[in-house]
Amino acid sequence: MEKIGRYEFRANPFHCDCTGHLFMGHLGNHMLNAADFHANDRDFGIKYLQTINKAWVLSRLAIEMEEMPQIYERFYVESWIESSMKFFTNRCFRVVNTDGKVYGHGKSIWAMIDTETRQPCNLLDIKDGELLQWELKDEPNPMGKMTRVMMSHEAELVKSIETGYNDVDINGHINSVKFIEHVMDLWETDWYCEHRLKRVDVAYVAEGHKSDRLELYREQTGEMEFCVRVCRAGADGTELCRMKLVFEN
Amino acid sequence: MEKIGRYEFRANPFHCDCTGHLFMGHLGNHMLNAADFHANDRDFGIKYLQTINKAWVLSRLAIEMEEMPQIYERFYVESWIESSMKFFTNRCFRVVNTDGKVYGHGKSIWAMIDTETRQPCNLLDIKDGELLQWELKDEPNPMGKMTRVMMSHEAELVKSIETGYNDVDINGHINSVKFIEHVMDLWETDWYCEHRLKRVDVAYVAEGHKSDRLELYREQTGEMEFCVRVCRAGADGTELCRMKLVFEN
Repeated sequence: MEKIGRYEFRANPFHCDCTGHLFMGHLGNHMLNAADFHANDRDFGIKYLQTINKAWVLSRLAIEMEEMPQIYERFYVESWIESSMKFFTNRCFRVVNTDGKVYGHGKSIWAMIDTETRQPCNLLDIKDGELLQWELKDEPNPMGKMTRVMMSHEAELVKSIETGYNDVDINGHINSVKFIEHVMDLWETDWYCEHRLKRVDVAYVAEGHKSDRLELYREQTGEMEFCVRVCRAGADGTELCRMKLVFEN
Repeated sequence: MEKIGRYEFRANPFHCDCTGHLFMGHLGNHMLNAADFHANDRDFGIKYLQTINKAWVLSRLAIEMEEMPQIYERFYVESWIESSMKFFTNRCFRVVNTDGKVYGHGKSIWAMIDTETRQPCNLLDIKDGELLQWELKDEPNPMGKMTRVMMSHEAELVKSIETGYNDVDINGHINSVKFIEHVMDLWETDWYCEHRLKRVDVAYVAEGHKSDRLELYREQTGEMEFCVRVCRAGADGTELCRMKLVFEN
């Protein structure tokens, strides 16, 4: 079994935006699907973890795209494990078209939790550290380092959203990529005719639950750079995630 | 070229709901994708139509499922043209798994418009009626007839929704299936742990546009049957679509 897994997807017409390119949300979900396929094929995916009451939890995700797949195009999402430590594993992604042209990359950090106690577990305890055999340290991933999303207290409440059935994944949590979609919806469709989301960095802080109402706080941190904090509405106000978006014309 | 087109899809884990089955929204989009692939492969799809300033417009869609594809499952959406008349064509769908087991069916009615005048055109004018050669009148589609969605004026305003970038398709209109997703979100996630959407019938009345705010009016029309009217908010209040949903335990 290769260390890099490669999964074919297609930019289906009804998964494309008003510019005829794949929605970032669909690409993000394809990355999560590729991660899941890669892990299951190597027997450390959710299918195996369920048998020992463990689960992967996405902690950070960054995607940087030079170009997005166009309508009808077939493309591959490649995924591999860059490194694994006691509590975190670094997983990379590469998006390439059928001619081998690289469209962009992704980086992610995953933790493992015990599904009963919800506490983090030592990844290297799984099958006596078998995870380490999948490490691929020198595979190039030229995208910049994952950046810490720094926000001031100046961020303004710009939207409040009711989540619903379609936001909730198989684990009963708000789907990680739905947060990106909700945040992208803060900009009008017309914005996306002239601007492209080049990079997004997301830090997942706490799990969103079904029926959560979300509050989105935004601040502009550069000419084409914005940060958004997503909190659970109500008295508790827990921060669920924070993301930085960089657009280009 | 066969009259029936067959397209493979997969119930990717991040396209599955809290019960581990494919979201109806994803299935609906796969049907629209299958329709598009089938039409393009036979040279009456949007690729050809764009060259003569015409476009397909979905007028009615009904989906009836005995079962939904499960997480990780590969399945096929088959599609064919049942009949074509001057202003409408009837297109069918069948969802089967890799063992040939039939999970459910779909029916749809499509019109063709001139993209400049937005007026309906005669489908049989296209390439001297070539569309008729694809008719397949006796292919079985055991689902019940498409039903007219009848609503009284008793329906209650239950939700108002801001649409955004992710709702808008490549034509600049609200994606037909997004209406189904928004309506399904009227029920809590918990409802779907105990109930399954067995059948949905949608009548598309007018196109939704980017930035439309939607108002959803619902009434219960049977023990497990509900109708929902979706209107554009504001002074105009145009009805955009109407749908009937039948659940089962």
